[in-house]
Amino acid sequence: MPIIHISLRAGKPEAYRQAIFDGLYRAMRETLNVPEDDQFMTMSEHDAANFRSGTAYGVARSADVVYIRMTVFNTRTPEQKKALFKRTAELLGKSPGIRPEDVFIVVLDAAKENWSVGHGLAQFA
Amino acid sequence: MPIIHISLRAGKPEAYRQAIFDGLYRAMRETLNVPEDDQFMTMSEHDAANFRSGTAYGVARSADVVYIRMTVFNTRTPEQKKALFKRTAELLGKSPGIRPEDVFIVVLDAAKENWSVGHGLAQFA
Amino acid sequence: MPIIHISLRAGKPEAYRQAIFDGLYRAMRETLNVPEDDQFMTMSEHDAANFRSGTAYGVARSADVVYIRMTVFNTRTPEQKKALFKRTAELLGKSPGIRPEDVFIVVLDAAKENWSVGHGLAQFA
Repeated sequence: MPIIHISLRAGKPEAYRQAIFDGLYRAMRETLNVPEDDQFMTMSEHDAANFRSGTAYGVARSADVVYIRMTVFNTRTPEQKKALFKRTAELLGKSPGIRPEDVFIVVLDAAKENWSVGHGLAQFA
Repeated sequence: MPIIHISLRAGKPEAYRQAIFDGLYRAMRETLNVPEDDQFMTMSEHDAANFRSGTAYGVARSADVVYIRMTVFNTRTPEQKKALFKRTAELLGKSPGIRPEDVFIVVLDAAKENWSVGHGLAQFA
Repeated sequence: MPIIHISLRAGKPEAYRQAIFDGLYRAMRETLNVPEDDQFMTMSEHDAANFRSGTAYGVARSADVVYIRMTVFNTRTPEQKKALFKRTAELLGKSPGIRPEDVFIVVLDAAKENWSVGHGLAQFA
């Protein structure tokens, strides 16, 4: 049940955007052991005027930077997050071919009782 | 002061989308005791290519799934969250008629000092 | 590495929206001591039907309300947040001229290990 929102500049073809979803899903399967079809993701495309990226922390980002905001259970360990970051950058590098400099991820932690994945229930509380 | 963002597939009429706002507001009034006109909500509509939903956790979601991301005070109890989930699914089921399988909610907790609801002040710190 | 998302009603000229980005960046530089070019921001413009704002907490908000959702290191102090809120409202008041009533900010805290600002690494863990 991670839920993910991806923000990027407008203009990429649909196959490119689908590859981002696919890569994230695969990275979550491999590093977080999420169950099958645990895919809850949205994407927003932004005009240049509504999107800003800097070069802070010595990373040569381009206009193709992708912001990935993920909310996960607060039981995920630093090791799992580290593995997730690494695998996500690898997979998005292969397809759709995003430079590793352009993969920006931030994770938010949410307690088990903070999720309702259907039916108005708190399934994990 | 919960602040809410709702993501859904594009194409629903305005009345449908307003009913989602109305239902969430009413659910917050009834279960979180938020003050009158405590309505801070945004909605984004996504093309199919920018929206993905799976069937994980045994829930038969449809293309009408609605992702509701809420940020609330970190003083809210698990019981309040449970009541909020239940009431939200009930109300959205009545109007605009969303299937309970399609109501997906995740709550983020923010400390009292993390809110500025106007005037550059930290009103609740 | 704060990452920021701004939501506002559609229709403001580009210069207005750039001034919001500029003001936020300057406020972060001055109050959070973020490094140079630490600018990671996205903006979404909403039709009236997809945007709702209330008057709760005695604040006379207008249709020009701006919702600013920021994720920061969880090491930021209440004092830093207070200074950030104050300075942001001041700067957005000067340019593009947003009323202080219309500046709504919520901060989310993310641990150091929750950030990957490029290269698939957890730079701050």
